[in-house]
Amino acid sequence: MEIGLVGLGKMGGNMVLRLLKGGHRVVVYDVIEAAIATAEVAGAVGARSLGELVKKLPAPRLVWVMVPSGKITDDTIQSIAEHLEYGDTIIDGGNSNYKDSQRHAAELSTKGIHFIDVGTSGGVWGLTEGYSMMVGGEKEVVERYCSIFETLAPAPDKGWGHVGPAGAGHYVKMIHNGIEYGMMQAYAEGFEILQAKKEFGLDLHNIAEIWRQGSVIRSWLLDLTSNLLATDQDLKDIKAWVPDSGEGRWTVFEAVDLNVAAPVITLALQRRLRSRSESPYSDRLLAALRNQFGGHAVTKL
Amino acid sequence: MEIGLVGLGKMGGNMVLRLLKGGHRVVVYDVIEAAIATAEVAGAVGARSLGELVKKLPAPRLVWVMVPSGKITDDTIQSIAEHLEYGDTIIDGGNSNYKDSQRHAAELSTKGIHFIDVGTSGGVWGLTEGYSMMVGGEKEVVERYCSIFETLAPAPDKGWGHVGPAGAGHYVKMIHNGIEYGMMQAYAEGFEILQAKKEFGLDLHNIAEIWRQGSVIRSWLLDLTSNLLATDQDLKDIKAWVPDSGEGRWTVFEAVDLNVAAPVITLALQRRLRSRSESPYSDRLLAALRNQFGGHAVTKL
Repeated sequence: MEIGLVGLGKMGGNMVLRLLKGGHRVVVYDVIEAAIATAEVAGAVGARSLGELVKKLPAPRLVWVMVPSGKITDDTIQSIAEHLEYGDTIIDGGNSNYKDSQRHAAELSTKGIHFIDVGTSGGVWGLTEGYSMMVGGEKEVVERYCSIFETLAPAPDKGWGHVGPAGAGHYVKMIHNGIEYGMMQAYAEGFEILQAKKEFGLDLHNIAEIWRQGSVIRSWLLDLTSNLLATDQDLKDIKAWVPDSGEGRWTVFEAVDLNVAAPVITLALQRRLRSRSESPYSDRLLAALRNQFGGHAVTKL
Repeated sequence: MEIGLVGLGKMGGNMVLRLLKGGHRVVVYDVIEAAIATAEVAGAVGARSLGELVKKLPAPRLVWVMVPSGKITDDTIQSIAEHLEYGDTIIDGGNSNYKDSQRHAAELSTKGIHFIDVGTSGGVWGLTEGYSMMVGGEKEVVERYCSIFETLAPAPDKGWGHVGPAGAGHYVKMIHNGIEYGMMQAYAEGFEILQAKKEFGLDLHNIAEIWRQGSVIRSWLLDLTSNLLATDQDLKDIKAWVPDSGEGRWTVFEAVDLNVAAPVITLALQRRLRSRSESPYSDRLLAALRNQFGGHAVTKL
């Protein structure tokens, strides 16, 4: 097939390579010229503007947007739409909030432009292992572009699927990431306890390797944990500062909106927030309050 | 090799079959006669008492104990030890508390009997997939019985390892189960949010299948989740009552003892405790208290 791909970052750049390998013609654009040039060397058709990208695609056009969520995605979709015609399709494969995707679908439909939201998982490993894709949108439009998903997925019939109407793809991806927060936190806590148990002289990499085979907690995240522990068990040079990119907090909002108790996912997010506060006001208040009622020692800075 | 196996429950019974298939001579005992008879049909040598089991093994003897943790394991190890001699070895492959295993090792060492603690993971799937085993004890004794572990593991060189002195095997298994609690809770919360989002008409089995391939949260627990969702998405006939068998709470105690914050593992355990309380006092108190200060409606039974 022929497809335009806008946004050649870690995810988008690798997806271009996987699409090219799958025999598709890929027209690419990025705000960074070097990224376009790199994709051209790999076999993509470069475009220096969104207008040029659209011109280089046959109607009905398909443009995959892979840029940071929020305003950049909003602006990019709007700019592309200005060049598109009735019957064309925009795919947002980024980590957009599902409510934004529902809005994009509604706005684009007034111009007769189709919208597909794809929650894409797989990180930098997707190039070799394939991407897991949760696809939302009109069923017949999704089916029209099957071969694109079949190329990007781990196997044509595996790891991707149409999960519901527009917004559903990003909704399912959001929950995926919420689960990911909880799982990562569970592993992190377990390994911290092992690391704190000095008397056994435990080898954390050896333990991760044992667990990878036949244990109940074997997973891809455990494979990655084992990878990192293979070369560094102390993690002394790693700052205990954990970013978040939105889906975790959206999952927490969603759980509250639906009156669903999701304490572990919520707490996993909160631990990330805590990791970014060097001296939380609450802990200073607790230390001071213990001093007030019990005369307990308080450490002054 | 020749090995005695005491306790032919779900785990022990399957381990006998895997050991027989691996060419070992297995002498078995259980308090339930039918379990012994079943193992005999499969090729094991039955014994009707611990004394008979020990007599049917050549010195130095190896006896693997696979019975419920706590008093039953204590009593069984003590009874077997009365029949054993200097140089024999007892393996506890159950889910014992690691402090019990440290005590067993110390007590048995006064008689010159070796003790190995094996944290065994794999559940009912271990028969076909092999068991993940975390082994604690004297290195040279563990090495002597390598071929037993090689047979039970998913592959001779995979899924098992010596992790430290006596107690370390059950310690690592305890943390494994703590992590398991957190992971299971994360999946459970995620799927509950998906299930509550009626507007998208999500197919939870389809979503689990997509995630199983190429996604960041792919895991064996997700494979099992997909299995169960394949035939039942509503889970209406399943009581929302989640037992625990000890390792989760021991992990929480251990984290506190070591001054390690493990909020997600702790909360996952607490959710299980909550699941077993139909009408918690705390929730009744909260309902009544809201009525006290705000005149909010309170539902009387």
